Amino acid sequence: MANQRPKPSKPAPSKAAEAARRSQAADDDTVITALGLKEAAPTDAIAAYFNKCEEKLGFVPNVLRAYAFDMPKLEAFVAMYNDLMLAPSGLSKLEREMIAVAVSSVNRCYYCLVAHGAAVRALSGDPALGELMVMNYRAARLSKRQRAMLDFATKLTAEPWSIEDSDRETLRKAGFSERDIWDIAAVAGFYNMSNRVASATDMRPNSVYHGQAR
Amino acid sequence: MANQRPKPSKPAPSKAAEAARRSQAADDDTVITALGLKEAAPTDAIAAYFNKCEEKLGFVPNVLRAYAFDMPKLEAFVAMYNDLMLAPSGLSKLEREMIAVAVSSVNRCYYCLVAHGAAVRALSGDPALGELMVMNYRAARLSKRQRAMLDFATKLTAEPWSIEDSDRETLRKAGFSERDIWDIAAVAGFYNMSNRVASATDMRPNSVYHGQAR
Amino acid sequence: MANQRPKPSKPAPSKAAEAARRSQAADDDTVITALGLKEAAPTDAIAAYFNKCEEKLGFVPNVLRAYAFDMPKLEAFVAMYNDLMLAPSGLSKLEREMIAVAVSSVNRCYYCLVAHGAAVRALSGDPALGELMVMNYRAARLSKRQRAMLDFATKLTAEPWSIEDSDRETLRKAGFSERDIWDIAAVAGFYNMSNRVASATDMRPNSVYHGQAR
Amino acid sequence: MANQRPKPSKPAPSKAAEAARRSQAADDDTVITALGLKEAAPTDAIAAYFNKCEEKLGFVPNVLRAYAFDMPKLEAFVAMYNDLMLAPSGLSKLEREMIAVAVSSVNRCYYCLVAHGAAVRALSGDPALGELMVMNYRAARLSKRQRAMLDFATKLTAEPWSIEDSDRETLRKAGFSERDIWDIAAVAGFYNMSNRVASATDMRPNSVYHGQAR
Amino acid sequence: MANQRPKPSKPAPSKAAEAARRSQAADDDTVITALGLKEAAPTDAIAAYFNKCEEKLGFVPNVLRAYAFDMPKLEAFVAMYNDLMLAPSGLSKLEREMIAVAVSSVNRCYYCLVAHGAAVRALSGDPALGELMVMNYRAARLSKRQRAMLDFATKLTAEPWSIEDSDRETLRKAGFSERDIWDIAAVAGFYNMSNRVASATDMRPNSVYHGQAR
Amino acid sequence: MANQRPKPSKPAPSKAAEAARRSQAADDDTVITALGLKEAAPTDAIAAYFNKCEEKLGFVPNVLRAYAFDMPKLEAFVAMYNDLMLAPSGLSKLEREMIAVAVSSVNRCYYCLVAHGAAVRALSGDPALGELMVMNYRAARLSKRQRAMLDFATKLTAEPWSIEDSDRETLRKAGFSERDIWDIAAVAGFYNMSNRVASATDMRPNSVYHGQAR
Repeated sequence: MANQRPKPSKPAPSKAAEAARRSQAADDDTVITALGLKEAAPTDAIAAYFNKCEEKLGFVPNVLRAYAFDMPKLEAFVAMYNDLMLAPSGLSKLEREMIAVAVSSVNRCYYCLVAHGAAVRALSGDPALGELMVMNYRAARLSKRQRAMLDFATKLTAEPWSIEDSDRETLRKAGFSERDIWDIAAVAGFYNMSNRVASATDMRPNSVYHGQAR
Repeated sequence: MANQRPKPSKPAPSKAAEAARRSQAADDDTVITALGLKEAAPTDAIAAYFNKCEEKLGFVPNVLRAYAFDMPKLEAFVAMYNDLMLAPSGLSKLEREMIAVAVSSVNRCYYCLVAHGAAVRALSGDPALGELMVMNYRAARLSKRQRAMLDFATKLTAEPWSIEDSDRETLRKAGFSERDIWDIAAVAGFYNMSNRVASATDMRPNSVYHGQAR
Repeated sequence: MANQRPKPSKPAPSKAAEAARRSQAADDDTVITALGLKEAAPTDAIAAYFNKCEEKLGFVPNVLRAYAFDMPKLEAFVAMYNDLMLAPSGLSKLEREMIAVAVSSVNRCYYCLVAHGAAVRALSGDPALGELMVMNYRAARLSKRQRAMLDFATKLTAEPWSIEDSDRETLRKAGFSERDIWDIAAVAGFYNMSNRVASATDMRPNSVYHGQAR
Repeated sequence: MANQRPKPSKPAPSKAAEAARRSQAADDDTVITALGLKEAAPTDAIAAYFNKCEEKLGFVPNVLRAYAFDMPKLEAFVAMYNDLMLAPSGLSKLEREMIAVAVSSVNRCYYCLVAHGAAVRALSGDPALGELMVMNYRAARLSKRQRAMLDFATKLTAEPWSIEDSDRETLRKAGFSERDIWDIAAVAGFYNMSNRVASATDMRPNSVYHGQAR
Repeated sequence: MANQRPKPSKPAPSKAAEAARRSQAADDDTVITALGLKEAAPTDAIAAYFNKCEEKLGFVPNVLRAYAFDMPKLEAFVAMYNDLMLAPSGLSKLEREMIAVAVSSVNRCYYCLVAHGAAVRALSGDPALGELMVMNYRAARLSKRQRAMLDFATKLTAEPWSIEDSDRETLRKAGFSERDIWDIAAVAGFYNMSNRVASATDMRPNSVYHGQAR
Repeated sequence: MANQRPKPSKPAPSKAAEAARRSQAADDDTVITALGLKEAAPTDAIAAYFNKCEEKLGFVPNVLRAYAFDMPKLEAFVAMYNDLMLAPSGLSKLEREMIAVAVSSVNRCYYCLVAHGAAVRALSGDPALGELMVMNYRAARLSKRQRAMLDFATKLTAEPWSIEDSDRETLRKAGFSERDIWDIAAVAGFYNMSNRVASATDMRPNSVYHGQAR
């Protein structure tokens, strides 16, 4: 080994210019999309919902502000989101968030990976699980059930035309009910939609997500 | 040219066995998905909505029956669908259906290509336009506006991670407003969801679509 | 469900501008390709062949007119086409047309999907079968034999380098002879050629195909 | 640099076992495909043609022997091949062979790369040109004309659905006539067919090709 | 909006079973790869190097332990790594780490994304920049220089055969010297190697990386 | 068969213009890359190494001249190359070269296919084996061991994220040790690096390779 070579060193900001760079997240809480759409006056229901978000989360997720230029669109989005992610299901909330992130990883959606990666970390209490869902779920140590669930969700994302009876049968053998299969498909489908709305509009995640549950 | 070769002939069923084959659509109005989920009792709103479908279309679209195992899921789907496809927009209803079919073509979704292909034929009065959206929209003779719209929607479908400011700028130069861009993204996103729910469940289109507006 | 939303309605041309659009097929019987090549004087054999087409089909398929700028090229094409699609084979004529459409679907060839989609509908008497071959053959309810045949033909189309002994063995186990395997390969190969000649020249299908056997 | 490491050495067969390996081409002149199809009795025209091959080339190309189980199929293939590759055209014979190899490289067809790679070497007198067509035509130093020709042919091979007016216009600007564009498309199309027939049947190239024109 | 639906709530571990799950990183500091290779006795140079790692970083990066079954392999790796990432270059150390992560994102390499994602966060002082390199560098707000650098590195990763003079010229126009172009290529190349060694062996990142510089 | 058609003929340079074309390899021994980097003064160790190359091979491989603008980079490259390709291993030198070529075929790297294709021909004594590694290793008649080795190496090249325990287990079942698996991964990884450095710089192979061991 050539010993005139550089030594390992703790990485540190190497140049003044770089030290002075603005955070990539500097505007993410104010300029939420690349489209110049103004928030509409909230309906009473939405105003109440935003208040609850502030109260419980400490902020309103930017995706909601992005949809807020049109109340019927926002209400439809919220209704579908809450049903899929929070209503009773054979899938735990963590499992639904794992699907969200694994799908968003295939689609490389910055907004959804940041926001739902944080949710996986928080719900699991395991920061590494969040990273694995973002980076490559195949490297995670998962139960057969959860592995089958994510294999189905990501195949459905990448090549939906190739899903067949044998894929559904694999889920049944892993213990999923007919309703569970629907829920896996519906959550995977929902993030295939959200990923695209977010990417099409350059939607930015609330900056607070980055540090959550690390 | 070897003149001992077979002559051209009007194609006709060539074998008894093939003549006797059941239509591929034989069960499509009764076995709507591959999942054994039973329809729930409809809410009053849904019952009224189904009645209106029967009255105006002559049938209830199978996608609605597929979601009918759970009323909140069906209501959320209907609310989002109706807002996206029927509410006022800078995109005509035909344009929204063209996006639906072009996206479904990328994803090769049998249900959506059949159902929304019929809608393009009906709204345009041009059967060939429906076929072009199903087969390859690039072969259609489109206005620059509609071509830009479909280029964006299909790129967003196939590689959502690669959409950038330049793509949005192309839409603006083709005459689309900020709100129009949202609507293109939202419709494209919605069918990326629906295509996957349909493919995951082997959802079958109502058989009546095949012959409509030919 | 928000009941101030639009109601379902039978789709109908929504705007005067759209109602007035010319059919996409308006010029397809006169401007057959994007290349300015003039038809040559037909040889006697070709003149007789075109007469038989008119007599039996009611028209000369546009692909023949496209090749007619050069009689030797047209004769070679007709000889190969007639041998492959009409000569005796262990594959029925319908099966050969099914391969034609499934291959053309991978390649998204407008001409071949329209022309041979019509042939599948006519030969099978089942419009839905034609649609399935165009849209996604995996969604069709096929015999194991026909499914194996189309799996081989589409794999050969999409990734020819990956065909190996095990693929041929799968065909043998599905009941195909050595000669049948050749015929599947040859028909799939032929449409991989035709799809590309058609796409390279923007070849347009005769407009009459759209309504046939619906 | 660690100087206890192995030194560079002229590569030489390293083990007895490897030295004794049979040539990969050992059976290629006798077992021509993986299908057990027997050669049929040749027609007079084919017998004369095979004699001329022996006389001029010193052998009958294996692709002809592969088709020889059925005389009409062989005659149709020969007629189309000879027209495309040898009849008068605005493309030189070398250019047609360059298309053959560049297309076969996309499809990774062993038979066609060996046989037509040899033809490029022989016709050009430049062994490196043959290697470049096999390995990556983009690394060759080509005229703008030939580069445009190969860009079109390989795009047509890899994603035929995406060819449009702008692609044809690029060829025209590079000096190609309408007829030349047809010929580029037809040659590219033909090898998309032949590549697949060869791959589907594991067709083996005559062993003599390997050493030709090196 | 259906107001009987679930309310937003701060995500929290939802089930006892999930709360009790072991961290995905539990064994990552002890079982470093899936191969049962034992560390060899370190040479003096390597022992000293590992001591410096412990001193400056607080740990020995697992990639070094993975290579430590064979001292010459480890020394060659360390020599190349240190030259590429730490020796003087027209690229800052942060820029070299940005390339490392953007390349590893294309290849979805868990080890490299975790370890070098942490380096980007540390060197830039911007956690969001690290996330962007992992998730989708196209969503970052980069200088033209850095964007051109990452476009080249990721194209070189995904389709190396398509790099041509025009790609190098784009880098020159963005201000890069001939030597800088080499360095971009060499760093991108190095992580294309490391990503594959890590993925092939299921290499696990030191658990400490996850929380660094958040 | 139309007998007025052209006859087969031994391919020969068809036009004066083409006969006069310069060899594609004309400058390959003098202009080694597209970057204007000058060779640095060699260290003593490198000067000795180059002398040995001249002595044993008859030339210095161009890749070494390409790296020679910077001695530490060249020394690091040589150290890693010699360890991987020449040091003791459970893989024979031929097997390591087979991996080099099969990987370079996926990446379509002109330099590496030419240089290492020659090595496979020389080490095996079988020109056809070299061609098969370049063109499509799946068409070669390989032992189960070598086929498993190349399947792993090319999967690792094309989709490194998808390698899992089952892939490693397949290697073990084919007789490979833990250390052998490392070596397969390390050689495949190394050429994924070298392919990219070569493609990024348009590195040209020494012209002498083309005719070696044919």
